[in-house]
Amino acid sequence: MQTSHSTNFIELFQRTLRVRQSLLCVGLDPDLQKLPANLPRSAKGIITFCKEIIEATHDFAAAFKVNFAFFEALGKSGWAALEAVAAALPNDVIKIADAKRGDIGNTAQRYAEAIFRQLPFDAMTANPYLGEDAAQPFLDDAKKGAFFLCRTSNPGSSDIQNFPDRTRPLYLHVAAQVREWNKKGNAGLVVGATHPRELQQVRKVSPELPFLIPGVGAQGGDLETAVRVGATASGDLAIINASRTILYADSGNKFAEAAARAAEKMRNEMRAILRTTIPQSK
Amino acid sequence: MQTSHSTNFIELFQRTLRVRQSLLCVGLDPDLQKLPANLPRSAKGIITFCKEIIEATHDFAAAFKVNFAFFEALGKSGWAALEAVAAALPNDVIKIADAKRGDIGNTAQRYAEAIFRQLPFDAMTANPYLGEDAAQPFLDDAKKGAFFLCRTSNPGSSDIQNFPDRTRPLYLHVAAQVREWNKKGNAGLVVGATHPRELQQVRKVSPELPFLIPGVGAQGGDLETAVRVGATASGDLAIINASRTILYADSGNKFAEAAARAAEKMRNEMRAILRTTIPQSK
Repeated sequence: MQTSHSTNFIELFQRTLRVRQSLLCVGLDPDLQKLPANLPRSAKGIITFCKEIIEATHDFAAAFKVNFAFFEALGKSGWAALEAVAAALPNDVIKIADAKRGDIGNTAQRYAEAIFRQLPFDAMTANPYLGEDAAQPFLDDAKKGAFFLCRTSNPGSSDIQNFPDRTRPLYLHVAAQVREWNKKGNAGLVVGATHPRELQQVRKVSPELPFLIPGVGAQGGDLETAVRVGATASGDLAIINASRTILYADSGNKFAEAAARAAEKMRNEMRAILRTTIPQSK
Repeated sequence: MQTSHSTNFIELFQRTLRVRQSLLCVGLDPDLQKLPANLPRSAKGIITFCKEIIEATHDFAAAFKVNFAFFEALGKSGWAALEAVAAALPNDVIKIADAKRGDIGNTAQRYAEAIFRQLPFDAMTANPYLGEDAAQPFLDDAKKGAFFLCRTSNPGSSDIQNFPDRTRPLYLHVAAQVREWNKKGNAGLVVGATHPRELQQVRKVSPELPFLIPGVGAQGGDLETAVRVGATASGDLAIINASRTILYADSGNKFAEAAARAAEKMRNEMRAILRTTIPQSK
């Protein structure tokens, strides 16, 4: 993401969405078992696959999100592939490290160093469970952002996140806490599209925070609510992630073209929803 | 850790502690800035440092815990160092990946693969925030364990973990949840020594779960409560981590000898506390 002087991550986030006229975040979760048949099932195959996906979908994306687990599963050659893929991300989109890190201060500092210094990411996903002093190293640099898990998209997310009850669930407390942690204009929230009612609640208590919204596509989340509620009336406060729907749109050697079509279709659907929500953005 | 047929992680954990007559977990958090002056400040220096620490402290340890952040901060050479250090861990101790991972099912599977298949760890630290379906891939293999964050040792841990109030805080809900997740005898909890009262509460609601207890030494936690309450009357249900106190006991070229002395001292203190708690274990 191109940076400029005296701006913070949230301003850069909003500017990027407006310039690119897109809310789409392309999630890079390169699954060895799902690689197109013509690519080697190795770290090298993953680099080629991701680079082609990036090139094919770049025009339609506001952000790319790289899922660290799929690289770490390959050991040190996977980490080398992660570096190669991160280096291939274009500078005019938001580069997100999906690593969901969270640890005490001196350790969190090292994770921030890995993601923001060793690697060229603009933002990361983070886990709020350890509290503010553990979150702080991820928010030290105003130009770098952290999206904290709030209401996740998986089926068992209510086990912990809905504690103690529906009237005052933990995820709303987390949203309120992250709002307090947002002293430099660079904190955001991860809120799944699979829980539209909760998405509305969270938006209500954190009107100014950017959302990273997973769970559309393969996970079955509601795109319309994600766009209307997540992006807000300004249309620039949420990115909506799609991984499997785009990456594996076609399993043959036309995978990149199919990914481009899938990305364009999603971007256009998001634009259409925004247009009917906010007539002046036509 | 040596495994045998038809046992689960908790049984292997308890057997290891009894055989080694130690509760000490040596935490490998190799900080480039704190390496002894005679070692290169590089991934290579970190490998040498960790290998010498492992060799020097092995006799006194029940477990080693490798903090991933300190390796990831060095990029791909750091991940290669992580593999080298993990390969140097002896088989008669518990090998713990301190990575605090947590993500939705298909991603969590990849983290489990990285830690338990690509790397030779017996157990990992994990974040419970996403709920049971996200925790499950870490608990799939009964012989591999996962220690879930419950009450962490850092100053801001109450921001989220004490929600909504002290009478029924989240960390006790997490303890109860993890107890339910422990279907195969391989789940444990991370409970900091810096909160002795909370440690007692958590032990009360989860009498059979193994604890990984950080926070003694540099963080100022209470060793006596950690041993008495954490390890329980059986003396084999907790390991107590020390990182900085051991690793940086001496910053000169006698660092390994100093680490051995620090580890032996801690192991002996723990034994002494256990002896006064449980006379029959003399």
